[in-house]
Amino acid sequence: MSEQDGRTRVIIENITPRVDDGAFPIKRIVGDTVTVEADVFVDGHDLITCVLLYKKEGAAAWNEAPMAPLVNDRWRGSFKVQEMGRYVYTVTAWVDRFRTWSHALAKRVEAGQDVTVELIIGADMVAAAGKNAPPQQASWHDIYAESVRAGGPDGIERALSGELARLMRAHAERFFACTCEREFSIVVDRERARFGAWYELFPRSTSPVPGRHGTFKDVEARLPYVAGMHFDVLYMPPIHPIGRTFRKGPNNATTCGPEDPGSPWAIGAAEGGHKAILPELGTLDDFRHLVEAAEQYGLELALDIAFQCAPDHPYVTEHPQWFRARPDGTIQYAENPPKKYQDIYPFDFETDQWRELWEELKSVLQFWAEQGVRIFRVDNPHTKAFPFWEWVIAEIKRDYPEAIFLAEAFTRPKVMQRLAKAGFTQSYNYFPWRNTKWELTQYLTELTQTDVREYMGPNLWPNTPDILPEYLQYGGRPAHMARFVLAATLGPTYGIYGPVYELCENLPLAPGREEYLNSEKYEIRTWDLDRPDSLSSLIARVNQIRRDNPAFRSNHNLKFHAVDNEQIIAFSKTDEARANEVLVVVNLDPHYKQTGFVTLPLEELGLDPHQPYQAHDLLTDARYLWQGTRNYVELNPLTVPAHIFVLRRKLRTEHDFDYYL
Amino acid sequence: MSEQDGRTRVIIENITPRVDDGAFPIKRIVGDTVTVEADVFVDGHDLITCVLLYKKEGAAAWNEAPMAPLVNDRWRGSFKVQEMGRYVYTVTAWVDRFRTWSHALAKRVEAGQDVTVELIIGADMVAAAGKNAPPQQASWHDIYAESVRAGGPDGIERALSGELARLMRAHAERFFACTCEREFSIVVDRERARFGAWYELFPRSTSPVPGRHGTFKDVEARLPYVAGMHFDVLYMPPIHPIGRTFRKGPNNATTCGPEDPGSPWAIGAAEGGHKAILPELGTLDDFRHLVEAAEQYGLELALDIAFQCAPDHPYVTEHPQWFRARPDGTIQYAENPPKKYQDIYPFDFETDQWRELWEELKSVLQFWAEQGVRIFRVDNPHTKAFPFWEWVIAEIKRDYPEAIFLAEAFTRPKVMQRLAKAGFTQSYNYFPWRNTKWELTQYLTELTQTDVREYMGPNLWPNTPDILPEYLQYGGRPAHMARFVLAATLGPTYGIYGPVYELCENLPLAPGREEYLNSEKYEIRTWDLDRPDSLSSLIARVNQIRRDNPAFRSNHNLKFHAVDNEQIIAFSKTDEARANEVLVVVNLDPHYKQTGFVTLPLEELGLDPHQPYQAHDLLTDARYLWQGTRNYVELNPLTVPAHIFVLRRKLRTEHDFDYYL
Repeated sequence: MSEQDGRTRVIIENITPRVDDGAFPIKRIVGDTVTVEADVFVDGHDLITCVLLYKKEGAAAWNEAPMAPLVNDRWRGSFKVQEMGRYVYTVTAWVDRFRTWSHALAKRVEAGQDVTVELIIGADMVAAAGKNAPPQQASWHDIYAESVRAGGPDGIERALSGELARLMRAHAERFFACTCEREFSIVVDRERARFGAWYELFPRSTSPVPGRHGTFKDVEARLPYVAGMHFDVLYMPPIHPIGRTFRKGPNNATTCGPEDPGSPWAIGAAEGGHKAILPELGTLDDFRHLVEAAEQYGLELALDIAFQCAPDHPYVTEHPQWFRARPDGTIQYAENPPKKYQDIYPFDFETDQWRELWEELKSVLQFWAEQGVRIFRVDNPHTKAFPFWEWVIAEIKRDYPEAIFLAEAFTRPKVMQRLAKAGFTQSYNYFPWRNTKWELTQYLTELTQTDVREYMGPNLWPNTPDILPEYLQYGGRPAHMARFVLAATLGPTYGIYGPVYELCENLPLAPGREEYLNSEKYEIRTWDLDRPDSLSSLIARVNQIRRDNPAFRSNHNLKFHAVDNEQIIAFSKTDEARANEVLVVVNLDPHYKQTGFVTLPLEELGLDPHQPYQAHDLLTDARYLWQGTRNYVELNPLTVPAHIFVLRRKLRTEHDFDYYL
Repeated sequence: MSEQDGRTRVIIENITPRVDDGAFPIKRIVGDTVTVEADVFVDGHDLITCVLLYKKEGAAAWNEAPMAPLVNDRWRGSFKVQEMGRYVYTVTAWVDRFRTWSHALAKRVEAGQDVTVELIIGADMVAAAGKNAPPQQASWHDIYAESVRAGGPDGIERALSGELARLMRAHAERFFACTCEREFSIVVDRERARFGAWYELFPRSTSPVPGRHGTFKDVEARLPYVAGMHFDVLYMPPIHPIGRTFRKGPNNATTCGPEDPGSPWAIGAAEGGHKAILPELGTLDDFRHLVEAAEQYGLELALDIAFQCAPDHPYVTEHPQWFRARPDGTIQYAENPPKKYQDIYPFDFETDQWRELWEELKSVLQFWAEQGVRIFRVDNPHTKAFPFWEWVIAEIKRDYPEAIFLAEAFTRPKVMQRLAKAGFTQSYNYFPWRNTKWELTQYLTELTQTDVREYMGPNLWPNTPDILPEYLQYGGRPAHMARFVLAATLGPTYGIYGPVYELCENLPLAPGREEYLNSEKYEIRTWDLDRPDSLSSLIARVNQIRRDNPAFRSNHNLKFHAVDNEQIIAFSKTDEARANEVLVVVNLDPHYKQTGFVTLPLEELGLDPHQPYQAHDLLTDARYLWQGTRNYVELNPLTVPAHIFVLRRKLRTEHDFDYYL
């Protein structure tokens, strides 16, 4: 016979949100409201009460939030997460004997039935519940019980009173309550985990003297420039000693000259490995100083974590067991047969010494956390074992709940999603290759309107040091403007790799390739940041708009709107309070002016369909008086290929709008 | 650190089919192919091998079926279930070192690389695998290992040979294999669980003498009639002694005369309860004789199980604790305030003696199983605790895996679905109230093309003793024909309540009500089965077509097709082998002739779009030569409002078709 009490009649099913049947946490930001739904029901006609349980993980007692029925046996409740770290939630429900009785009593009274016996049943329930109550309230139970038991119009009135319902809600026993045995987890991060503008630069190219290797001090001098564009995060490729064995030359040449700096991702040399700093960049003190200086400018430093070794990395001689040995005594270098990457030794995650390897890699993250780094951009996490990531991210976030991990996994969808489930806060994604209206609509809808959004935070990059998409190659400056506005407004988090981006550098390594020519990955470059065609002022403007308009802070509120021109895309976002409604319109054609009519669902956007409203373009400060669902737009790629409107309801005249901000 | 071996790198996710994260079994029929899919992948570029594991529940060893990759990291495998009872399945996968090595070797060889060291690595693997092999095959491993180790063109050829791949598939160690820890269950039933035509009759009305109470012997005399219509299941309302306290009179009157038989669902009187037989029907021996006689006619008896008591049921005095007592010493009767059902006492599933109650109710099912009954139509299961059903159905099916349970739960969707998950083989459903083309298309698509089909078997009834839908009331005989054809062809299992159905009885209790006037529930009726307007010959024809055409045996293969007339519905079905393609077209308008063009996706149906094909109407034996995707139909409700076509490819001439059957 059933192991649990067979009298537990309530059924709880299909609790949402949940990831992989509850195996992985959902992700939220401090201050977020977490809304939970469940199918809850019981046999027969009894009434049930349903409560959402939640607590910080490890806390002894549950907090409770009421759940209310929607339709079709679905219930909903919500609570706010107030602290970083892990929360858990689940649902409990029970047949509510008092509510069932009370509901029936009202109908019996209405039908004029004799309710004498019913009132005795109710009085007994009220008296019994009093035994669970503190003394003062227990005496109220006794008073109500006696009054109900006495019957008559007064007894009936008392029986059906809101005060008695409240007393019973607080103290009545939850007979045979069913609590979902599975607890669902939430990882709660700080706001930067969801919302931020990233800027990537190579420290080696920050020197004011052409050809000289840049230093952390040069990066410090660059901070006003980056902060002036209102970025939030400054991300640097690996800063460690670079291997000399099989070092790559300019443009990924297999041989290099004595002065060539090599790729920063070929980590480790005689000077040290993942915890050391490339001497040309400076010292650990210089690095700490940079972290603090950046903070003064409102910039947070993100470090690149690439768990792989150059052949001269100290690990190779100290821990040969962490690599795969070949029968000829050599160590297995990275390969994708027939291609060979002899400058890189991957770790062997199937080594017998996997525990020692895991601990050492964790200590790398800890080391940099101790230097003040809280944002880790992880290189190619999809070529390391998933269980390692799940373990190490949980370990680091236990000590540093503010830590943010960005997965650079340009790979198959389910692999990317698994890394997000395993703990990565954010994910690079296919945005660089989603260029048409159809592609962007499909892909961003998937990222923001399906279950994926519960655990995967997209970080949209129009370019990276490895990716110069064809659209940017052929579209030049207008394409760079359009893609920038799309990245910065479609998602709450985005980044650009500069200064090539704002300078619209767009020469590929070779026709048909999407690597940059003369990439900073393999050589030192010098940039003229003051070029008049730089996009820096557009970037500054857009980042300011992002900061000023809370609608841009969420990833769940994106809606695409119809435009009768395939080259124009339009989408709106709103904040949780629905007080800030923005509409972005972008011309995707980098060559020609495009015009069209945007169709908006006015009532959904909180606009009166019978009144004009204002579309205020925050990019140009132009204000358009719009009316009805269809309005004309015209965008010239040679000036500004986008509108970023805030939509404002009209109050009385066209000069007297209801300003939301 | 991780409890499991951190070197287990393979990830298995999203195994389908699964019900509620694997909490409940899927349902299949003996002989069915079970197709299982999963997302399976690993970090990096290694190749994996993926295997489907399955066995009868409780068996020691797994059987294995290969899984093949589809797209997007999805894998698929399948196996057949050959016996009734419970099976379990899950998925295992591992990084396949030999396949990874072999795949890379081929590319290296193609690129002309030196593979000496690679061949040594491979030879070592082959030799190691030989240690797991039986002696004869182990020696083959040694031969291959040496040959591969020796290198040269021969070594390479051996290394890449299919024979070596087979040897290694059989014996290579599955390093760090990942097996999904959850096992998923299957309940395997006999074919009648999915496919069958049911006929319901009241034994009380089977007497040839008007007004005399019918007996089991009278029912035996009715068997040729029912079998002549090619039904498979004969279902009778409860056959137990009927309570006398508060017995209902004709048309549900609250008072009754001394001769009124009462409702068979008011179970229990001085003569006995759920294990006794109403003396007017006969004896237990008579019942056993009826079971056997029915079997002779190819009919299986289904019994009504209504777990509730009349006030004079022996349980009430023997086990008062199984009912809810009121403070005035009375027992709580059934209520839906303000409505009172004083002739029924429900069991209290929250009684302290729930274990005794459960055991006794189980013994009722066991008792009738011992009399030869294997099909139980359960009355109002949604007013009894779900955990009871889950337990009792599993208990009965352990001893009688051929048992079939039909849930009569006309209630909310999630409650119905939960009963199916808890073990009910089949379910009544909303079919009686789905009458328009849109309603039928939506609802049957939900039942047959969504996950619901994995566990809920619909049993489609156009009427029941409680339900005379408005469509039948107003549509008369044409409506009865149309609804019959729909029930019998949309689902593999359906039923009618006769003889009222075939005689097109359609008077409601009162205008706006959907109960039958002068219902057999409360009185004895006499029927003229030979009336010339009886639908019995249509019914016989359709049931024969169902038996002859395997397409009608499955619930998963239903497709609706476009018709340019809202009053005409068209749908096709096919069998697993796709050798039998049927097309049903029904005029839903019971008043007027309707015409229209049916549009068919010919290639999906296995028809050559450039050749004519034959639509052979199995109802009328008319043959139409059709061509192209759009073809004309015309249906007159006053003759036959439906076509049941079998579609046949043309071979050479219109007289020489490719007969599938």
